[in-house]
Amino acid sequence: MVQNKSAVFLKYPTEYPVIGEHIEIQAKELTVDLKDKDVLLRNLYFSLDPYMRGRMRNVKSYIPGFQIGEAMSGYGIAEVKESKNDAYPVGSIVSGFTGWQEYSVIPGANGLRVLPGARESPIPLSAHLGALGMPGMTAYSSLKIIGQPKAGETIFISAAAGAVGQLVGQMAKKLGLRVVGSAGSDDKVDHLINELKFDAAFNYKKNGTILENLKRAAPEGIDIYYENVGGETLEAALEVMNNHGRVIACGMISQYNTQQPYGIRNLHHVVSKRITIRGFIVSDFVEECSADFAKDVGSWLVRKEIIYKEDVTEGIDASLEAFIGMLNGKNFGKAVVKVADL
Amino acid sequence: MVQNKSAVFLKYPTEYPVIGEHIEIQAKELTVDLKDKDVLLRNLYFSLDPYMRGRMRNVKSYIPGFQIGEAMSGYGIAEVKESKNDAYPVGSIVSGFTGWQEYSVIPGANGLRVLPGARESPIPLSAHLGALGMPGMTAYSSLKIIGQPKAGETIFISAAAGAVGQLVGQMAKKLGLRVVGSAGSDDKVDHLINELKFDAAFNYKKNGTILENLKRAAPEGIDIYYENVGGETLEAALEVMNNHGRVIACGMISQYNTQQPYGIRNLHHVVSKRITIRGFIVSDFVEECSADFAKDVGSWLVRKEIIYKEDVTEGIDASLEAFIGMLNGKNFGKAVVKVADL
Repeated sequence: MVQNKSAVFLKYPTEYPVIGEHIEIQAKELTVDLKDKDVLLRNLYFSLDPYMRGRMRNVKSYIPGFQIGEAMSGYGIAEVKESKNDAYPVGSIVSGFTGWQEYSVIPGANGLRVLPGARESPIPLSAHLGALGMPGMTAYSSLKIIGQPKAGETIFISAAAGAVGQLVGQMAKKLGLRVVGSAGSDDKVDHLINELKFDAAFNYKKNGTILENLKRAAPEGIDIYYENVGGETLEAALEVMNNHGRVIACGMISQYNTQQPYGIRNLHHVVSKRITIRGFIVSDFVEECSADFAKDVGSWLVRKEIIYKEDVTEGIDASLEAFIGMLNGKNFGKAVVKVADL
Repeated sequence: MVQNKSAVFLKYPTEYPVIGEHIEIQAKELTVDLKDKDVLLRNLYFSLDPYMRGRMRNVKSYIPGFQIGEAMSGYGIAEVKESKNDAYPVGSIVSGFTGWQEYSVIPGANGLRVLPGARESPIPLSAHLGALGMPGMTAYSSLKIIGQPKAGETIFISAAAGAVGQLVGQMAKKLGLRVVGSAGSDDKVDHLINELKFDAAFNYKKNGTILENLKRAAPEGIDIYYENVGGETLEAALEVMNNHGRVIACGMISQYNTQQPYGIRNLHHVVSKRITIRGFIVSDFVEECSADFAKDVGSWLVRKEIIYKEDVTEGIDASLEAFIGMLNGKNFGKAVVKVADL
């Protein structure tokens, strides 16, 4: 019998989750009784993502909600520790849906993918939760399929230093677009301009309204808006959007932790400017894009043609604070928990 | 020299236009001095449409604004009275952009289309402003291209007894959809159910909120929302929309005459339900759809497989009140002015 530190869901929050009230680290007892096809994982990295806030609601969605009293779950990278499944031998490195905890039993090894050569690869394991994982696939597929980007167009990206935004911006530069980003600190803005080579970027908390900032950064208007935050930023983007503009609705994190959502007052532009707003989840596009994605992004990373910044928190104990920090935009780069060394 | 009663634009309104302040009937003097290719029209029918309110703003749009002190313009049906253009002989019946007045000189006969056989056709002339005109093309093309309707799906149509809505509903029934409509009076609701054979309809001013009404009328949710009004109705539609739903953003008339537009608070559904919202103007689709449109809708009208209700106002003198009435939803059917007898 082992102690298994786990992030446990206690209660549905209506605004930001509070540690001790809605979520808590508990040392659960681990009983391993594998059935045929099951595996026991030793978790190495765990991904903190905005969509997880959506699982803290008691409503039907595309992904089941967290269960009260149970460990939460999400994308992770792990080592197979015990196995009754020949496709997942002990010692192999896998990615997939794991528990937000030190060890997880995965019935039937459901959804796990072996990462061949991961121990020896120059690409760090955590990249499989970022540029090479769900955020990367999200950026790559939605920019291509919904964005329909054309060289010379302007794209505006909110939360541009975040897990998805930083990739969208670099991919759009490769396609010959003018790239404008917003972020919540001067450090992030510096990073966008100086490291990621964005054409313009602004700190949305400073120098006037978001609309004023956006007009300065994109004086010719925008053709594509990569939407991660919602609210006032969406309203500003619709205001400066050019005819036939496209909004790639990836997330609206500013609206997830409030009971007073922001009212968007200028949707009439959708008619007069013939705008398309389209929401998606990444699994809609996996089939169409996964081969190109792995090839393109893998080689860009190895050749260092794209940079991927991570914000790594050490250990399960600190992971709840890191999660709440991410919901507040405190992470600088993709938020990841390092659960254990390989 | 003839007196030419004209609807003249005086001043930009910020809310509803007021007769005498923003718009006015004036008897203008008509001087006819046709140059090569010009025609003089005797106007017969004039179309009153929501998009015209958008021309009363001093902003760039897909269509030029009205000029202060000049007669306003719009779609009309007319008889060629004098002609210096062989393609438009005297006596021919034409449709196109005409003045909101009794007589119009059209330089170069720009954009006019001769309606061959129109005098003898069983189809009334005014149909070329409705089912066979811009509203018909709007309904037909956008339902097909943006709506991607599939038999068995549910469509909800706001302003369902209006110029476009009544056609969308009947076309959707032909395609095997379940059709739900909203309108602003019990008479209109009766018409939708009993004449147009909608599956359900409600008066949005009665029996609780729009959302409550919509939930009763569409207990399984909706797959397509045909958007004519905006505001609270759009919010309700997003709330009950099924996954992968589509919003055909044709107009948002509730938002055109106010300085306090309604704030939409539930756009987060666009992400979680993977909704597409797409605005358009009918000219985007003319090339792709006009052949099929003329064939399909023409034969449906002749065979009386679709019904098209018009709200006809007699004479230019009453036309401004009819226009403001249409902006308020007082028209029952397509709003048309009969300017003169053929």
